[in-house]
Amino acid sequence: MITVEEANAIILAQTMRLETDWAPIATAVGRILAEDLVADRDFPPFDRVSMDGIAIRHASFAAGQFHFPIEGVAAAGAPQVSLNDATACLEVMTGAMLPLHTDTVIRYEDLTIADGEARLTVTDVKAGQNIHRQGLDRLKGEVIVPAGRLISAAEIGLAATLGKSMLRVRRLPKVAVVVNGNELVGIGEEPLPYQIRQSNNYALRALMSRWGVQADMEYLPDNEDIIALQLRRMLDQYEVVVLCGGVSKGKFDFLPASLEKLGVSRLFHRVAQRPGQPFWFGIHPDLNRVIFAFPGNPVSAFMNTIRYFQPWLYASSGLNTLPALHAVLAEEVNFKPDLTYFMQVKVHSDTDGRLIATPLQGKGSGDLANLTDADAFLELPRGKEVYQAGEVFRLWGYR
Amino acid sequence: MITVEEANAIILAQTMRLETDWAPIATAVGRILAEDLVADRDFPPFDRVSMDGIAIRHASFAAGQFHFPIEGVAAAGAPQVSLNDATACLEVMTGAMLPLHTDTVIRYEDLTIADGEARLTVTDVKAGQNIHRQGLDRLKGEVIVPAGRLISAAEIGLAATLGKSMLRVRRLPKVAVVVNGNELVGIGEEPLPYQIRQSNNYALRALMSRWGVQADMEYLPDNEDIIALQLRRMLDQYEVVVLCGGVSKGKFDFLPASLEKLGVSRLFHRVAQRPGQPFWFGIHPDLNRVIFAFPGNPVSAFMNTIRYFQPWLYASSGLNTLPALHAVLAEEVNFKPDLTYFMQVKVHSDTDGRLIATPLQGKGSGDLANLTDADAFLELPRGKEVYQAGEVFRLWGYR
Repeated sequence: MITVEEANAIILAQTMRLETDWAPIATAVGRILAEDLVADRDFPPFDRVSMDGIAIRHASFAAGQFHFPIEGVAAAGAPQVSLNDATACLEVMTGAMLPLHTDTVIRYEDLTIADGEARLTVTDVKAGQNIHRQGLDRLKGEVIVPAGRLISAAEIGLAATLGKSMLRVRRLPKVAVVVNGNELVGIGEEPLPYQIRQSNNYALRALMSRWGVQADMEYLPDNEDIIALQLRRMLDQYEVVVLCGGVSKGKFDFLPASLEKLGVSRLFHRVAQRPGQPFWFGIHPDLNRVIFAFPGNPVSAFMNTIRYFQPWLYASSGLNTLPALHAVLAEEVNFKPDLTYFMQVKVHSDTDGRLIATPLQGKGSGDLANLTDADAFLELPRGKEVYQAGEVFRLWGYR
Repeated sequence: MITVEEANAIILAQTMRLETDWAPIATAVGRILAEDLVADRDFPPFDRVSMDGIAIRHASFAAGQFHFPIEGVAAAGAPQVSLNDATACLEVMTGAMLPLHTDTVIRYEDLTIADGEARLTVTDVKAGQNIHRQGLDRLKGEVIVPAGRLISAAEIGLAATLGKSMLRVRRLPKVAVVVNGNELVGIGEEPLPYQIRQSNNYALRALMSRWGVQADMEYLPDNEDIIALQLRRMLDQYEVVVLCGGVSKGKFDFLPASLEKLGVSRLFHRVAQRPGQPFWFGIHPDLNRVIFAFPGNPVSAFMNTIRYFQPWLYASSGLNTLPALHAVLAEEVNFKPDLTYFMQVKVHSDTDGRLIATPLQGKGSGDLANLTDADAFLELPRGKEVYQAGEVFRLWGYR
């Protein structure tokens, strides 16, 4: 049995080098950028008026002038205009090019206009004020966003400004989420007393959808021959196979042996953690496949997907950092087994700016309903039995 | 000019009562649940074996018995079996119904099996152990998730277990995101020196897509007649019109007057905040429309959408709580104007479990590139000039 840290390191050593793909910016949020976003012009591309008002030469003001005859208007979206008389002014609109021969903008709030003349109502006018200078934010050719960024709405706005309707992003892997067990029936069916409906495939697909992956769902019964046949097909069809169930010590837990017969190398089986201890992980070196085989208990499969599949996916996508969250344990927790305990918690942000994690332990790894009450898992590392209120641990959220 | 708090209250008084809609569970993550999710059976639906091993009568163990002849196997997904001889055992698999006449499960790790007999290797066996009792998690008829919840992957897993392939969710409003200004060209076009490409519509649509809304994009030039004509159509076609630009003091800022001519009641214009001060908000009472008209600077439009549109949307969708985040200001900030300052910040979670917000102020509300460096806005309330390092404020994130 290996530790959580060892399991994580083994998994991250098996990241795929996913190639690049194109995504329209309408759907690129949540994908990983695979190109640098570079300024195609200066930002702003010209000396840009940043307040509605008038543009003057500051020297005229400095010389004591308070009235400025209005020569005309500089509108946003119009070619640059020019001030002819150095003692006059031009009305200027936010977003317009600063007129030639002017250097200072005075906003409407600070003047009155009458009889074709603007008259200042303030005495403090700084040279160069209310102008967003060409290139002040970024210079043409500068990298604004480097490749490897998780794309948010901010990057979409920038891409639009750069004229990019498509973005180079990392391709997503082809993933199957497979549930296993004779006790499972489809969600459209009425279960017999000893049956339950499939749910891990839906829950894990939903988790992955928030990370950009559209997984397919599959089902395997507890039948060695069918498992062998279907797994062979899945290894052919999918780059990542995420299995739930059939990896423990049961008489019908055929998955590890079946996978190994198909050429999958086991890299580990069993991790010193609760829930999710029987987690099995392997690769098919010839086909370049990665296989996560999680225990079938809903809390185990859910936690393992967040804790292990998610970092693997982001590392495979070239994400340059996956920010870690930490939270304060709200109350003392006793946990005797020498295992890392992924405790279900409810999280809130307190008025000291801390994330507070309140235990909501539920009734064990089969307690699916408890997942809907909790928000996250708090990772309590092994090696002690008492976790004090106020201690801080790594948080793995799903809301 | 009103305060941020007043603006927020006025907006939240104009929430729509969005009716319910159906969403397939494949796409329901991120929507607001509009029905209670109720246990259709007990959770678990039967006394469920929770470890692979053997099932016995505890009384036999208590009477000193350590060897148990194996009568057969209880598999998951099979009808309940029965122990015939009270001194024997049945092999039982995780997920199986506990066999009749047994009450305790001993896991394989704690026994050896040879010659058709299981022999205990431990001396501590608790009556009832390793059984997940029927109804322990939830009882049939219990509300597991109340309506008004933002749906996560956990609720999807639960819905599958309940046999619900479709969920009642709140309908999403029909939203247009409209950019305005003669300086704007399409993202496929090469801008002239005094032009820039449209970006607010893309950025705001991307923000909204993370909240479930699929907004349409529209454009308005600085032309009063076209604005009147197009706004009339949009008020007809959309329930929410989000405008960017044309609301300040410029000569071509036609939007407020045009909206009022079309029967839109202004509820406020100008909010004591930076960025985004010229924010205009109104409703069309007859058509039951809501109009957010933001200034056109990219940072202003982006911030206002997060700070005002988002809470309006969630309140209209019946979300029962929008959790607030708070973060610690990392360094002293001086800000003299008597305005609430939405400062752009980079956020990280420190090892004390605190969210730390580091100022990344950028070059003002026109600095789109700075949004891609930052993660969030920190809301520094008006009424003081110095915000100390270590003080805690409300955080509005977009990553």
